[in-house]
Amino acid sequence: MTAPDAYTVEPWGLTETSLDLDVLARAESVFALSNGHVGLRANLDEGEPHGLPGTYLNGVFELRPLPYAEAAYGQPESGQSVINVTNGKIIRLLVDDEPFDLRYGDLSEHQRRLDFRDGMLRRRAEWTSPAGRSVRVTSTRLVSLTQRAVAAIAYEVEPLNGPARIVVQSELVANEQLPAWTGDPRASAVMEAPLVAEQHTHNTDAKALLVHQTRFSGLRVAAAMDHEVDCPADFQGEVESDPDQARYSVTTVLQPGQKLRLVKYIAYGWSAARSLPAVRDQVAAALTAARFTGWDGLVNEQRQYLGDFWKRSDIEIDGDMELQQAIRFALFHVLQAGARTEERAIPAKGLTGPGYDGHCFWDTETFVLPVLTFCLPDAVAQALRWRHSTLPLARERASQLGLAGAVFPWRTIRGEECSGYWPAGTAAFHIGADIARAVERYVRASGDIDFERDFGMEILVETARMWRSLGHHDAEGLFRIDGVTGPDEYSAIADNNMYTNLMAQANLRAAADSATRHLHEAGALGVDTEEMAGWRDAAAAMFLPYDDKLGVHCQSEGFTNHEMWDFDNTPPEKYPLLLHFPYFDLYRKQVVKQADLVLAMQVRGDAFTAEEKARNFAYYERLTVRDSSLSACSQAVIAAEVGHLDLAYDYLAEAALMDLHDLGGNTKDGLHMASLAGACIALTAGFGGLRDHDDHLVFRPRLPSGLSRIAFSMMLRRDSLLYVEITPSHATYELRQGDSMTLMHDEEEVEVVRGRPVSRPIPRPVPLERLHQPPGREPARRHAQSGPNVGSGAEPALHDADL
Amino acid sequence: MTAPDAYTVEPWGLTETSLDLDVLARAESVFALSNGHVGLRANLDEGEPHGLPGTYLNGVFELRPLPYAEAAYGQPESGQSVINVTNGKIIRLLVDDEPFDLRYGDLSEHQRRLDFRDGMLRRRAEWTSPAGRSVRVTSTRLVSLTQRAVAAIAYEVEPLNGPARIVVQSELVANEQLPAWTGDPRASAVMEAPLVAEQHTHNTDAKALLVHQTRFSGLRVAAAMDHEVDCPADFQGEVESDPDQARYSVTTVLQPGQKLRLVKYIAYGWSAARSLPAVRDQVAAALTAARFTGWDGLVNEQRQYLGDFWKRSDIEIDGDMELQQAIRFALFHVLQAGARTEERAIPAKGLTGPGYDGHCFWDTETFVLPVLTFCLPDAVAQALRWRHSTLPLARERASQLGLAGAVFPWRTIRGEECSGYWPAGTAAFHIGADIARAVERYVRASGDIDFERDFGMEILVETARMWRSLGHHDAEGLFRIDGVTGPDEYSAIADNNMYTNLMAQANLRAAADSATRHLHEAGALGVDTEEMAGWRDAAAAMFLPYDDKLGVHCQSEGFTNHEMWDFDNTPPEKYPLLLHFPYFDLYRKQVVKQADLVLAMQVRGDAFTAEEKARNFAYYERLTVRDSSLSACSQAVIAAEVGHLDLAYDYLAEAALMDLHDLGGNTKDGLHMASLAGACIALTAGFGGLRDHDDHLVFRPRLPSGLSRIAFSMMLRRDSLLYVEITPSHATYELRQGDSMTLMHDEEEVEVVRGRPVSRPIPRPVPLERLHQPPGREPARRHAQSGPNVGSGAEPALHDADL
Repeated sequence: MTAPDAYTVEPWGLTETSLDLDVLARAESVFALSNGHVGLRANLDEGEPHGLPGTYLNGVFELRPLPYAEAAYGQPESGQSVINVTNGKIIRLLVDDEPFDLRYGDLSEHQRRLDFRDGMLRRRAEWTSPAGRSVRVTSTRLVSLTQRAVAAIAYEVEPLNGPARIVVQSELVANEQLPAWTGDPRASAVMEAPLVAEQHTHNTDAKALLVHQTRFSGLRVAAAMDHEVDCPADFQGEVESDPDQARYSVTTVLQPGQKLRLVKYIAYGWSAARSLPAVRDQVAAALTAARFTGWDGLVNEQRQYLGDFWKRSDIEIDGDMELQQAIRFALFHVLQAGARTEERAIPAKGLTGPGYDGHCFWDTETFVLPVLTFCLPDAVAQALRWRHSTLPLARERASQLGLAGAVFPWRTIRGEECSGYWPAGTAAFHIGADIARAVERYVRASGDIDFERDFGMEILVETARMWRSLGHHDAEGLFRIDGVTGPDEYSAIADNNMYTNLMAQANLRAAADSATRHLHEAGALGVDTEEMAGWRDAAAAMFLPYDDKLGVHCQSEGFTNHEMWDFDNTPPEKYPLLLHFPYFDLYRKQVVKQADLVLAMQVRGDAFTAEEKARNFAYYERLTVRDSSLSACSQAVIAAEVGHLDLAYDYLAEAALMDLHDLGGNTKDGLHMASLAGACIALTAGFGGLRDHDDHLVFRPRLPSGLSRIAFSMMLRRDSLLYVEITPSHATYELRQGDSMTLMHDEEEVEVVRGRPVSRPIPRPVPLERLHQPPGREPARRHAQSGPNVGSGAEPALHDADL
Repeated sequence: MTAPDAYTVEPWGLTETSLDLDVLARAESVFALSNGHVGLRANLDEGEPHGLPGTYLNGVFELRPLPYAEAAYGQPESGQSVINVTNGKIIRLLVDDEPFDLRYGDLSEHQRRLDFRDGMLRRRAEWTSPAGRSVRVTSTRLVSLTQRAVAAIAYEVEPLNGPARIVVQSELVANEQLPAWTGDPRASAVMEAPLVAEQHTHNTDAKALLVHQTRFSGLRVAAAMDHEVDCPADFQGEVESDPDQARYSVTTVLQPGQKLRLVKYIAYGWSAARSLPAVRDQVAAALTAARFTGWDGLVNEQRQYLGDFWKRSDIEIDGDMELQQAIRFALFHVLQAGARTEERAIPAKGLTGPGYDGHCFWDTETFVLPVLTFCLPDAVAQALRWRHSTLPLARERASQLGLAGAVFPWRTIRGEECSGYWPAGTAAFHIGADIARAVERYVRASGDIDFERDFGMEILVETARMWRSLGHHDAEGLFRIDGVTGPDEYSAIADNNMYTNLMAQANLRAAADSATRHLHEAGALGVDTEEMAGWRDAAAAMFLPYDDKLGVHCQSEGFTNHEMWDFDNTPPEKYPLLLHFPYFDLYRKQVVKQADLVLAMQVRGDAFTAEEKARNFAYYERLTVRDSSLSACSQAVIAAEVGHLDLAYDYLAEAALMDLHDLGGNTKDGLHMASLAGACIALTAGFGGLRDHDDHLVFRPRLPSGLSRIAFSMMLRRDSLLYVEITPSHATYELRQGDSMTLMHDEEEVEVVRGRPVSRPIPRPVPLERLHQPPGREPARRHAQSGPNVGSGAEPALHDADL
C-alpha cells in the first residue's frame, strides 16, 4: 500500500515528484500508456533500473502447458500467457563515458507526469554523473490513440555544468530478461525468451526493424523504429541491427545551453496468419505514416481525441479533489484499455502489466463495458464482436462439457479456456450471462440494431441454449442451476447461486426478446418459437433461494446454514484469505470474497424489493472481506441505494484509489481495470442512482455529506448526450446533444428537451445506523479523512520536452 | 475383461494353462506373491517378456513434485510413489547359445499355478529353442510369511531331446527399465531410475548384495542373494557385481534326464534412518537365516502358516465352485497384503502393482481390516499402529487446514497427504471416521484393551476433535458438516453427506466411550469431561438429511433435488464416466459412482429402519453405476439385507471376480484389495447377515437360491473361534475354541457353548420384484450363469519343482 502522498493531487493529471527505486514496478503500471492495441509500461527510457519491463500487443501470447497433479477429463491442457514483446521504448544515454543510470551518481530532480488531457507521459530528470557532469534529461512519450500501431518519444538531453560528450542509443530489444516469478497466483507465469528471430533489417538512415515469431503459439510480431534528430552541434548517427536488437546511436558534444533532441517513432504489428513480408510491410507503413504525421501532428491528434473523449465522458466531483483526480485517472485508463482493441479482448489489466497472464475475464463485460457503453460505444461493439468471433471455440467447449450452445472461457486471451482450476473457472458459468448482459445493455443504449442482428443475437441465443441445458426443472417445476460458482470466489460449486440464476434468467429473456425482434435471422440459427418458449418458461420458473428464518436471500441454496467464518480470530495479516486458508475451508463457511448477491442486486435490481435490498445488504455486509478488487464498487452502489451514503462514499474511494494507493499490493503487475471502471459505476449508479434495467434510464440521485456536487455525461443512441448534475438538493438533467428523451427521476417520468435543463429535488437522506463489516475489513472512512478539500488543485509546471 | 476361462476353476488354487503375451501384466498381478513387507509381481523368471516388472518393499517410495496449473494454499507440494526396487527374481537361462525367451522358439507347454494352501507359485514350461533344442523349465517361488525379509525360488532345467549347454544366470537388477506411463489417472507415475547405487559386493561363493538409496526420499534399500546348486554334471559357478547389477552364473552341459536345480535365496531390507553397514548387515543376516532354514524348511513354514490361517479364516461355499475359488483367492491375497506390514500401510493394491502410486486410502480400514479383524487380528493392530505413528503428520495437516485434532491423508505411503485434487482428496474427511471405526471394531472384536489405551484411544480422540471443529451447530441446534466429500466420487464438496455425518457421529461417540474407559490416559491427552460432553452432544445433534417427498435419505443435503444423470443416453463406451465427462457435470447430477448412502446403511445399519433401508436401496440402486470397485460388495450386503438375495449374489460375484475376470480392465496395475476383501464381507455380512455395530455379534443369515451352503469362521477375543454354517433352512453356530459366547440370531439371543453347536431356522425368503439399475450397468446375473456347478473341482497335477 502506497502512502497517499506518492503522487500530487491535481484534477487533470498525476505527478510523481521523486523516484523510489523500491516501488518502480508500481509506477510502471500507474503511468503505463496504451491504446488497447499497443501497451507500454512506464519503464524508464534508459531501460534500467526497472521493476518489470513490459511492452504488450493485444492478442500476442505464448502457449504454456497447464500441469495437473491428477488428470481429469476436460481440463485445458495449455494456457496462454501475455508476453513482453520487442521493447521499442529504450533510449539509453552515455554522458562522457558513464551510462545515465539512476542507481549511480546523484539525482537532484526526477519528475514524471501523466496528463489526462493529452495522454502523454512527461519526464524530467537532473542528474550528476559519478564523474561530476550534470545533465537534464526530458522525455515525452505517447501511444497514439489515432494511429493504433504507433508510439513515439521525444527525448532531450542538455549538459548543465560544462561540455559533455553525449551518446544517445535508441533501441529495439527482443527477449528482454525478466525478473523471476514470485509465486503469487495472481501474477503471470513469466516465460523466458518467447521470441524466435525471423528477420532484422536497418537502413543507412535512422530506421530499423525486427521480426520475430512466438515459439508455440506461432504469432509473428514486427517492431520498427525511425528517428528525427535536432542537434545544435555536429553529431553522427549510426544504425545497426542483429536478430534480437536494433540500435540507432547519436553521438555529439554539447555545451551547456545546447540540447540534443531525438524524436523516436515506433510501430508494431502482429499476425497469426500473415506472411513475413506482409507483417513487415504493414509495420513499415505505419512507421512511415507516423513520421509523415510528425511529432507535433501526433500530439495534436492525441489532444483532439482526448478532448472529444472528455467532453462526453468526464465525471466532475466537487468536494474531494483526490477523488476527482482518481476518477479521471480511472476513466483515462479505461479508455486506454478499450480504445483500439478492435476485435481483441480487453484484459483484466488492460495492457499495463502481465498480471493474470494477460487474460480477459468477466471483469470486462461486467465492469469495463458498462462504462464504455455510455462514452465509447464503438469500443463496446468491438469488444463484443471479439466475443462473437470466439463462438466456434465456445461451442466446442460446450460440447466437450456436454452442454448445448456456447460456454465462454473463464479466462483467456484468444478464446480457449485457460483456467487450470475448474471450481473457480469453468464452473463460473455466469460469464455467459455477463456477456449476454453486456450485449443487451449495449444494444439498448446505442440502438445499434445492426449489431444486434448480426452479432449480438447469436451470443444471446447460444448462451440461452447453454443455460437451458445447464439447468433443469425439479419435481415442483422450479428451474434449478446446480453445482456452479458465482462471482464470490470464496464459495464454489454451489446450487442455485442467486447471481447466476438471476443473470441466467435475464439472459434467457433477452435471447427470446432478441429472437422475437429478428425472427428471420433467429430461424437461421435454428431458433423456433418452441425453443423461445422454453427459454421464457425456464426464466419464469427460475428458483431463487430465500431464507425465511433470516429474511434474506441466500447467496446460494443453503449458504445461510453454513458456519460463520471466525472473523474475530482472523488477524489482518491473514488477508487475503486465499493465501492463508485452503479453499475447502473458505467454500464451506459464510465468508464472501467479493460482492455476489450484492452485485445481483445491482445488475438485477428489478428482482428485489427495496426492503429486501436493505436486509440483504446488511446481512452480506457482515460477511464480505473484499479480498477482491471487484467488490468495493458494487458495495458502493448498493450502499448508496439503501441509504448508507457515507459508506458508499468509502467504498467508492476504495475502488477509485485501488491502484493509486496500491490497496491490493499488486499494482506492480498491472492496473485493476475493473476496479477503476467500477469506481466510475459507483459514482453514476451509486450517487447518480443510474439503472438501465429497462427501456428508460432511471436516476435516483443522492450525495454523501462529503461531496457538494457531481456531474457526468452519457452518450445515448449515438446522437444524444445527456448531462447530469447532482447537488445535495437537486438533480439537473440537460440534453447537450439530441432532441429529447424520457428518463425516470425516482418514480417520476421526466421529459428532457435539448436546451431546456430540467431540475428535480432530491429528498434529504435519512440517517441510518452504520452497518457492520468483518472486524478489520471496514473500508477506510472517506468523509472524516477528506475533511476540507484535499490538495491544492494547482498543476505543477512541468517542463515539456515537446513545447 | 478376461474371458472367464483364462484360469481353471478349482477350489484351492489358480492355474493358468497357457501364456498370453498380450495380457502378461494382468497375470503378473493375479499371481503376485507378497507377505505385506516384500511383494513380487509374477514376472517370468527370465525377466522378459514382461508386462510390468515389479518388486516392492512396503514403505519404499520416491518423492515427486505435484504440479498445479493454479497455485493455492494448502496443496501438497510433493507426492509419494511406490518404486520398483532391486529385482531379485530374475533367473535367466541360455540353452546352447540361445536365450530362453518365450517370444522366440516354440512353447509347447506353459503352466503356472498358485496354491492357496502353501502360498507358492509354480511354473512349468516346455520350450524348443529356435535351433531345435527342447528343455523343460520348472520353478517354484515363495515369499516367506514367516521370515518377512525373505523370498526364495527353486529353479530346475532339463534338456528333453538331446544334450544341451546350459547357462543359468541368477541376478539382482536395480533400476530396471519400465514401460512408459499410459496416462490413466488410476495408474502410477512411473519414475525412471529412482535408485542411486551405494555399494555392491559379492563373495567368491554364490552370494551378492546391492545397496542403493532413493534420490529424494532418502531411503536406503539393500537386496542380497545366495544360491544352492544341485547338478548331476560338472558345473562352474561364478559371481560378479556392479553398481546396478549382481549376477551368479552356473554353466554346465546336461544330458536328457539330467536336471540342474538352483535354489535362490533373496533377502531385502530398507531403512530411512539406519546406516549403510546396518542395513547391509540386516539383509545379510536375513539371507543367512533363510539359507539356514533351507528351501524345505521355508516351504514347511509356509504350509504351516497357511494351514493355521485357513483353519480360522476359510469361507466355504457350496453350489458355486468358481465363487469358492474366487473367495479363497481373495482371502489369500488379503492375507498376503496384510500379514507382515508391521507398522506400515496396507496399500490399495497391496504389493501387487504400482496402481494408485502404491498409496493407502480409506479402503484399508473400510474393507480390508474388517476381514482381517476376524482372522488375523494382529495384522489389524499393526495397521492401526501405523496410522497411530502418523498422528504427528495428521495433527500438522489439521493445523494447516485450520482444524483441531488430526486429519489423516486421503492417500499416502508414509503419512503425508499426497492427493493433488482436493475436492476428491482432502475434502473426503470421512477417512478419519473410517480409521476410528476400524479401531472401534478391532478393540471390540479382540478385546485388546492395551491397544485401545496405548494407541486406539488417541486416534479416536484426535479424530473426534477434528469432527467437532469441522462441524458446527446451526441456528436450530443441528450439528452440520458442510462442504465435504463422501465415498461417492461423483459428488464432492457437499453439505451433510449422510455417510460422513453418521460415521462422524459414531466417531464422536466412540471417542467419548473410550475416554470414559481410560479416564486417566484421556486426561493426559487433555481430554476432560466437558470435551467429552461436547462430542456426545454433537453426535446427538447430528443432522441427517431426509427427503420427505421421496421418502428417502439424501446422500447429501439437496442431492435428491439435482438433475438425474441421463442414463438412457449414456452408451456403454462412456463408462467409467470419469474418463468421459467433466467432474463439474458429474458432481451436479444424481449419479453415484460407488455405494455411499448404501455403505452408510451397512456400517451404520443401526441408524436406519428396515423400511428406510429398503426404500433408500431401491432409490440409489437406480443411480449407482459402479465405476468404482468399492461398490459391488456393499450393494451385495444391503441387497441381501433388504431381501434381494439374487441381486446380492450377482454383486458378490462381481466383487469376487473383479481381478480374476479383470472387470475394471486395470488388474495389470495391481489387484483391487478392497474389492477382494469386500467379497468376503459380502458373504459374511451379506448372506451371513453379520453386523458388529454393538457388543453382541448379530447374524441374520439368508442364502440366494444358487447357493446350497456357506460356512465361515471368526476369531473373537483372541481365544474364541466361532464357526458359522448356513444352509437355506438353518444356521448353525459352533464354538470351536473358547468357552461360550452370546450372539444374536435375528432378534433372538443365542448362547453358544463349546462342543454344542446350536441350530436355528432361517425364514424362507420372500420373493421381491427385481430392482432397477442404470441401463447397461446391471450386474451380470450370477444364478442363471452358474446353473449347475461350474468347473470340475479337480486340481491339475502340477509338476512341482520342489517335490
